[in-house]
Amino acid sequence: MSELRDAVDLENWSCPLPLRDHPAIVLGHGGGGTLSSELVEHLFLPAYADSAGVLSQLGDAAIVQAGSARIAMSTDSYVVRPRFFPGGNIGDLAINGTVNDLAVTGAAPLYLTVGMVLEEGLSLEELNSIAATMGRAAREAGVSIVSGDTKVVDSGHGDGIYINTAGVGLIPDGVDLGPHRVRPGDAVIVSGPVGMHGIAVMSVREGLEFGSDIVTDSAPLGGIISELLASGADVHMMRDPTRGGVAASLTEIAKASRTGVDIVERDVPVPDDVRAACGFLGLDPLYVANEGKFIAFVASEDADRALDLLRGHPLGAGATRIGTVTEEHPGIVVARTGIGGTRVVDLPLAEQLPRIC
Amino acid sequence: MSELRDAVDLENWSCPLPLRDHPAIVLGHGGGGTLSSELVEHLFLPAYADSAGVLSQLGDAAIVQAGSARIAMSTDSYVVRPRFFPGGNIGDLAINGTVNDLAVTGAAPLYLTVGMVLEEGLSLEELNSIAATMGRAAREAGVSIVSGDTKVVDSGHGDGIYINTAGVGLIPDGVDLGPHRVRPGDAVIVSGPVGMHGIAVMSVREGLEFGSDIVTDSAPLGGIISELLASGADVHMMRDPTRGGVAASLTEIAKASRTGVDIVERDVPVPDDVRAACGFLGLDPLYVANEGKFIAFVASEDADRALDLLRGHPLGAGATRIGTVTEEHPGIVVARTGIGGTRVVDLPLAEQLPRIC
Repeated sequence: MSELRDAVDLENWSCPLPLRDHPAIVLGHGGGGTLSSELVEHLFLPAYADSAGVLSQLGDAAIVQAGSARIAMSTDSYVVRPRFFPGGNIGDLAINGTVNDLAVTGAAPLYLTVGMVLEEGLSLEELNSIAATMGRAAREAGVSIVSGDTKVVDSGHGDGIYINTAGVGLIPDGVDLGPHRVRPGDAVIVSGPVGMHGIAVMSVREGLEFGSDIVTDSAPLGGIISELLASGADVHMMRDPTRGGVAASLTEIAKASRTGVDIVERDVPVPDDVRAACGFLGLDPLYVANEGKFIAFVASEDADRALDLLRGHPLGAGATRIGTVTEEHPGIVVARTGIGGTRVVDLPLAEQLPRIC
Repeated sequence: MSELRDAVDLENWSCPLPLRDHPAIVLGHGGGGTLSSELVEHLFLPAYADSAGVLSQLGDAAIVQAGSARIAMSTDSYVVRPRFFPGGNIGDLAINGTVNDLAVTGAAPLYLTVGMVLEEGLSLEELNSIAATMGRAAREAGVSIVSGDTKVVDSGHGDGIYINTAGVGLIPDGVDLGPHRVRPGDAVIVSGPVGMHGIAVMSVREGLEFGSDIVTDSAPLGGIISELLASGADVHMMRDPTRGGVAASLTEIAKASRTGVDIVERDVPVPDDVRAACGFLGLDPLYVANEGKFIAFVASEDADRALDLLRGHPLGAGATRIGTVTEEHPGIVVARTGIGGTRVVDLPLAEQLPRIC
């Protein structure tokens, strides 16, 4: 392996234990938590040494210039198991996930590419069902699948199907969202009840079946977000709380914007059956993944207007203000608990629920 | 599996045997040959039912409008085994492959996204080496990696690393390439010797090792192509002959342009050691994959100008005219053989060399 000349210097990693003792990939590196961040910060960023500095934005999508157009670009690979779960399958998840990563930047999602890695032996029937779901989801989201690629790997060297979707959206003139616009006093709004996607997937996972009627909330957010932006409410930043849930999204925004976030735990809308399942599984609903919700940071004076608009849309019926941006404890999210105490909401080390997207 | 409502109607598939008898994915579905085409035509196109009709262009990349900009979009997943081979690894292949898919549309490649599916247990050392190679390849190609995603799958459910790259390029004003511009009389030019990438990978494949100094030709083609277009030579269409080699690319162009292609077999530049390896392995060099070459269809009167320009560039030193477009036998590629006969060059059913990209 003489090609391996670019040694990783593990000494400089801030999260020493799991990496220094195990200089190999573990599941947590894909979980959207601290291990994922470490990998990006210490391995990918130095390796890619992105001259344009765009990659270091580290948002859901990159904002770049293509000729006279300002476009958002995003990519996501989907490896969820099982491939079919209550309310959806890996196919609509792969469409909605990338559509939403584009939408929360303020872009109008336009085009997707689809790259599939299929395992020899996957039935054409199942592939067709997944592809048909993708087609329907794309039409519902108003995007076109414009380019595709399919590779097949030997039986035993894949897992049925992995799907990558990458997408391009157009940022309308005047739209400028991001951590640089987050201000103390901003209202923190979530567009509806949280935790449904993660629990829906868990409910049918082998060995973990439990009775539940929870279905995934997977849905395309381009429409509701474009209505919110068109309403004139002064939205400063948005994010869709997928891997790592609301907790990871808020923590990342607090760090990137160098502000603090205070949330009131009992104001976070958690459906009763999600709360029950979380209790049963020992999970914190704040960390469970969603796929049809977004978090918006909105100028304080526009919070009510934004909430009214969201609640008038089928995908925002349960929109709620859950907190406020503060000058205190920059980079840190603090939750006021039901019994009147406070706790720090931190990025998970790895993930609570592996492979939910 | 009540979700599997979208039945595949195998009766309508034109390639009945392997599909009807085995309604499951086989390696050949990823090989870029007839099985791949069937999957696209009979499964993905109907499933995606692309309203814009862009997907049915089926080129190396899609050409779409983003605001006032005309952009090319492309995606490719890389599953090559082994991951390291003479002259490169899966990392630079993943960069150059997508850069070249964009470049042959006439676009200036600008931005890439990288989606990785890592298998638990992959060493950080090896991942770092691959990522560093990707960074170098991107800088050499003049593109920025702007967005990334990493998933980790359980040990035994992946194959070390799969990489998807998707890319966006900007089509300059006035550039319009494609099968609709191919005309009888056009010169068919290949930018250099063929077969090196596929044979380089085969030379180190487990169980197939054979002595050879052949290294991959993997290289970014954006620069040489932009010089060719800027020269004013009337280029009608380009393609990079990767999976399925020169044979598959010419066949696809003949079909899409509804013209015939006549090539002179002895004019196709094949390095001696590639020819020797092909003889040893029982392969036809016309079908072996390349990753740093392109085929150009050029107006007859500009053929010499195009050849001169290409030969003056380090990546086009061996550029050669290998044939001519004809009104006869539309959709079919005919090779004049060394002994004066002719043979039809058809799309392979599956592939000669699995997993070379």
